[in-house]
Amino acid sequence: MKFLEDRILRDGKVKEGDILKVDSFLNHQIDPELIAKLAEEFYRQFSEDRPTKILTIEASGIAIAIETARVFGVPMIFAKKNQTKNIAGDVYTSKVMSYTHGREYDIILSRDFLTSDDRVLVIDDFLANGAALRGLIDIIRQSGAYLCGCGIAVEKGFQPGGRELRSEGIKLKSLAIVESMDAATGSITFREE
Amino acid sequence: MKFLEDRILRDGKVKEGDILKVDSFLNHQIDPELIAKLAEEFYRQFSEDRPTKILTIEASGIAIAIETARVFGVPMIFAKKNQTKNIAGDVYTSKVMSYTHGREYDIILSRDFLTSDDRVLVIDDFLANGAALRGLIDIIRQSGAYLCGCGIAVEKGFQPGGRELRSEGIKLKSLAIVESMDAATGSITFREE
Repeated sequence: MKFLEDRILRDGKVKEGDILKVDSFLNHQIDPELIAKLAEEFYRQFSEDRPTKILTIEASGIAIAIETARVFGVPMIFAKKNQTKNIAGDVYTSKVMSYTHGREYDIILSRDFLTSDDRVLVIDDFLANGAALRGLIDIIRQSGAYLCGCGIAVEKGFQPGGRELRSEGIKLKSLAIVESMDAATGSITFREE
Repeated sequence: MKFLEDRILRDGKVKEGDILKVDSFLNHQIDPELIAKLAEEFYRQFSEDRPTKILTIEASGIAIAIETARVFGVPMIFAKKNQTKNIAGDVYTSKVMSYTHGREYDIILSRDFLTSDDRVLVIDDFLANGAALRGLIDIIRQSGAYLCGCGIAVEKGFQPGGRELRSEGIKLKSLAIVESMDAATGSITFREE
């Protein structure tokens, strides 16, 4: 998506350690107009897959996921990263390795909100190693629901997550794929569509 | 708001320990149509205050906050609960006591996204003791920004947070205020508007 690539070029910042900061518009401060455009694009990409639920993981995926759910007219559900008192009992759970935090954590989703009757579109803001997506897909498989596919705002194409998921036949659509970036010069190159 | 009270009566569940579960439509599975109506109501309540930023805290406030930001046409920012690699450097920080988790935690917000030029509307899904709101208001005061007020979906009126904040002159609007509830019978009574 040209508008997302342009925004990344304008406001994104490349930092040492393969970090692409997009926190001025995508995942700390969030531009609602941009998010609405991303949601409309996800609708174009996945409307034929007729999702009944939009699934994401807290926290920064929630904004894009709720907008996408609004466009589709279906509920949004989000996996939580820690067990809390208010989610007791019957949950799906999976383990996710966080490369950002250097540790493994559990994700959980109440069984009340995902069943084998559901068709699930997974939405997230970022894809790098794909660890979070793997956890969400694991939960979908536990539920017996159908995986429509995954919609991602920004994929780091030089990390393996996207390639691996596509090689398994998963319908994965990233609205901007960073092919390479350079912290020294600040340059960012996108994959040609 | 009658539509929110009706939804709580229909789908909310009262549990022992003053827990009101609204996780089928507000904070685990989220109904985007309901969220859009809440956002429109916050616009009616706060449009004269002309906010330039909508502020919330991860995770369950994000969905309502981004919808409210979309209606106002201003950016949404959310405070994070843990320091991550991707937010380094210059941050506002405050301490919040979580009664749900029984421990204190830090919240942080990048200084890049809140300045003394801003007028801030705080949005959250729940208000009980007011600890999270206190942390957000502390961050706003550190920034020198103007606090327009606080918009809450569900307030537990029998806990002290709302009363205390109102007594300090803060413009606090809760769209449903639970006056009392009973886990044994499942009954929920709302405060008259």
